Amino acid sequence: MTRIHISEVGPRDGLQSIGRVAPLEAKKAWIAAEAAAGVPEIEVGSFVPPSLLPQMADTAELVAFARQIEGLAVAVLVPNLKGAERAIAAGTQKMSLPFSMSETHSLKNVRKDHAAMITEIRAIADLVAAQPEAARPHFEVGLATAFGCTIEGPVAEDKVVRLAAAAIKAGAAEVGLSDTTGYANPAQVKRLVRRVKAEIGADRLNTLHLHNTRGLGLANALAGLEEGITTLDASLGGLGGCPFAPGASGNIVTEDLVFMLEAMGYETGIDLEKLMQVRAIVAGALPGEPLYGFVPDAGLPLGFAQVAA
Amino acid sequence: MTRIHISEVGPRDGLQSIGRVAPLEAKKAWIAAEAAAGVPEIEVGSFVPPSLLPQMADTAELVAFARQIEGLAVAVLVPNLKGAERAIAAGTQKMSLPFSMSETHSLKNVRKDHAAMITEIRAIADLVAAQPEAARPHFEVGLATAFGCTIEGPVAEDKVVRLAAAAIKAGAAEVGLSDTTGYANPAQVKRLVRRVKAEIGADRLNTLHLHNTRGLGLANALAGLEEGITTLDASLGGLGGCPFAPGASGNIVTEDLVFMLEAMGYETGIDLEKLMQVRAIVAGALPGEPLYGFVPDAGLPLGFAQVAA
Repeated sequence: MTRIHISEVGPRDGLQSIGRVAPLEAKKAWIAAEAAAGVPEIEVGSFVPPSLLPQMADTAELVAFARQIEGLAVAVLVPNLKGAERAIAAGTQKMSLPFSMSETHSLKNVRKDHAAMITEIRAIADLVAAQPEAARPHFEVGLATAFGCTIEGPVAEDKVVRLAAAAIKAGAAEVGLSDTTGYANPAQVKRLVRRVKAEIGADRLNTLHLHNTRGLGLANALAGLEEGITTLDASLGGLGGCPFAPGASGNIVTEDLVFMLEAMGYETGIDLEKLMQVRAIVAGALPGEPLYGFVPDAGLPLGFAQVAA
Repeated sequence: MTRIHISEVGPRDGLQSIGRVAPLEAKKAWIAAEAAAGVPEIEVGSFVPPSLLPQMADTAELVAFARQIEGLAVAVLVPNLKGAERAIAAGTQKMSLPFSMSETHSLKNVRKDHAAMITEIRAIADLVAAQPEAARPHFEVGLATAFGCTIEGPVAEDKVVRLAAAAIKAGAAEVGLSDTTGYANPAQVKRLVRRVKAEIGADRLNTLHLHNTRGLGLANALAGLEEGITTLDASLGGLGGCPFAPGASGNIVTEDLVFMLEAMGYETGIDLEKLMQVRAIVAGALPGEPLYGFVPDAGLPLGFAQVAA
């Protein structure tokens, strides 16, 4: 039975895309409830300047809180070296740096071109290496807009392969492929996963971060699984969304993804009934905010039994 | 380049699940516009007694209308021999008989057990064979609830394989697999397609009919493609739905499916922009009825070009 690792990114990707600030206590309740449902990893926030994203101002407190939950891997997003310093000081176990394959998007997003990003990756990798082993977080580089960009349009696969190799050479432990814009299709996912794995080593690419903007999110996840992807980001209620894509929905829905995986015979360690109950906490904290997901609406099939839950 | 055949079932599966009756002229406009967008096959209605489904009372007129559209294959659903007689008299080119793998569902749906259904299939096959060649429609049996039933729960794959063979032996030209209830998952789709093809011959199973009730519709379509499925049913705006599944959405959305296929490099012959314009006709005929679909909301990716359109 293959284990698939789910990384819940709602408290980061979901909440950063919503204008209002969710209360700290509600975030804690959300994180605790998802961990209790068996979710093995949660991206609790990002270390960006609070002046830019006040929704993420309490990330250090959330890392400290989440670190007390046994068995939970605590992840954060960092935009640069400064963010990485704060993440390490807070005690995070995993940090992801978004590296946009579209240079135009990179310049708009973090004001750095590709050369400057490689320099930043090297500086963060050096910082990580300088930590005592117990305080050394896993450092992943997320290859953003890897499947296309809302500003540049198509992104050449050759470029993604080359920049993935450059990120690893600069010291990233791993890269992930991010469909930031919801442009990916399953054939492209298969091709690109295969090519990047061939270039940097199969164990250096394990993660897909998918948005469901055009409804292909779960089909893309399936394509990734068939190419050996073992970690999938997802967001409870599909919270999240790309400000550059009008009408976009957010990340793939954790509830629907876990249903698909468990129904297929993969092991996630997540109790689906308990996971769906977490929606009430999020809905209570963000009244009026739409929560997506088909399985929560339709219910589980009659006679459906989770193998491992 | 592989051609995938799209069969639009909205005028049948979609409209039969909506209480009100769409005007004949609106149905004609819908069918004509989809054919003009390049959709190669449309299931225009069903030959059930108008007392049961008044929404389908004008099916004979729709067959006559659609037969005038060059290049369009005109399909209908028939529940029994009587329906098949009417379908042939109307001049239909393809007819599908739903054969529910759940005997409980079959009894509720058409008041026939499996033995009676096999008798019915044989009678229809004999009727078809007795027609002059030009008037002989293609006769397909749709294996309904093949992936699970909202009354019986799980449906044994052995039973589906056995009944598929019985339907072919009784004279059906082809069987299709229908996820009537939205219970299917991609692993199950692959397994069952493979097993049925192995049992009855690869060319006797070409079609999947999928509902998106739990959001897995396109992932299931992808799984089918990988096992050699070449015809996919879909419904414009995802109209349709299963009265037994609360919160269910309908069939997989034609617009999203065509986007996935064309993005992957399959050829559908359908112009996506024109297809999306058909939504206005349906929305006008059914004010207030929700139309689903991610691609119509989000738009096509920047720089997206259809290879063949």
